[in-house]
Amino acid sequence: MTPTEVVGAFIDAIQRKDVATAVSMVTDDVSYENMPLDPIVGPEAMAATLEMFLGPASEVEWHILRSVEDGDLVLHERLDRFRIGDGWLELPIAGVFEVLDGRISLWRDYFDMATYTSQTRALTAD
Amino acid sequence: MTPTEVVGAFIDAIQRKDVATAVSMVTDDVSYENMPLDPIVGPEAMAATLEMFLGPASEVEWHILRSVEDGDLVLHERLDRFRIGDGWLELPIAGVFEVLDGRISLWRDYFDMATYTSQTRALTAD
Repeated sequence: MTPTEVVGAFIDAIQRKDVATAVSMVTDDVSYENMPLDPIVGPEAMAATLEMFLGPASEVEWHILRSVEDGDLVLHERLDRFRIGDGWLELPIAGVFEVLDGRISLWRDYFDMATYTSQTRALTAD
Repeated sequence: MTPTEVVGAFIDAIQRKDVATAVSMVTDDVSYENMPLDPIVGPEAMAATLEMFLGPASEVEWHILRSVEDGDLVLHERLDRFRIGDGWLELPIAGVFEVLDGRISLWRDYFDMATYTSQTRALTAD
């Protein structure tokens, strides 16, 4: 699989909320970085964080809009959508991935935290 | 010039606070998108926005950390640094550019707005 295909399969697993499959595709020292926050290191910490993000969502759609690959590096634009209650939370993201020997060693997402938190508050207000 | 070289020259002009040169490198219908905000369309509106961002800074360093090109598309990671008073504001960014016939037609930056505003407040507090 190419780095782009690895990232695509990883995102597919997340859309199925299949965290076990997703974290099986990362290296033991993976760094998972939501840029406003501290890095999360290792598959177990990544799994716990993903469960927290995905837990409230009854459906998860992460659309890869554009993707560019160079060597081990994949940079892409995404629109992450989470169905929460009757509504959808939508978060525009730019993602940076390093893929070593078929496994993701770096996942760094750039996004506006307030865009996420304000929608979370609105959708869970009841 | 390749799309990557065009983007590099554009960023160089911004680092010199040479807004006139920067906007001479974009198309008449350029869309300049700071993702949490509405798109800014056209060179004149881009120039006004850049003057506003760059104005308070005595020095501007925008470091391109990684850059990947595919066709007309350039995606990169940057660390934008602004010297304001005695301190430096630092903003991690992922940028998306489309370059048509040597001119930038799309510039979209992904970043955390609160990371920018909180540092602006701290550095201009006096």
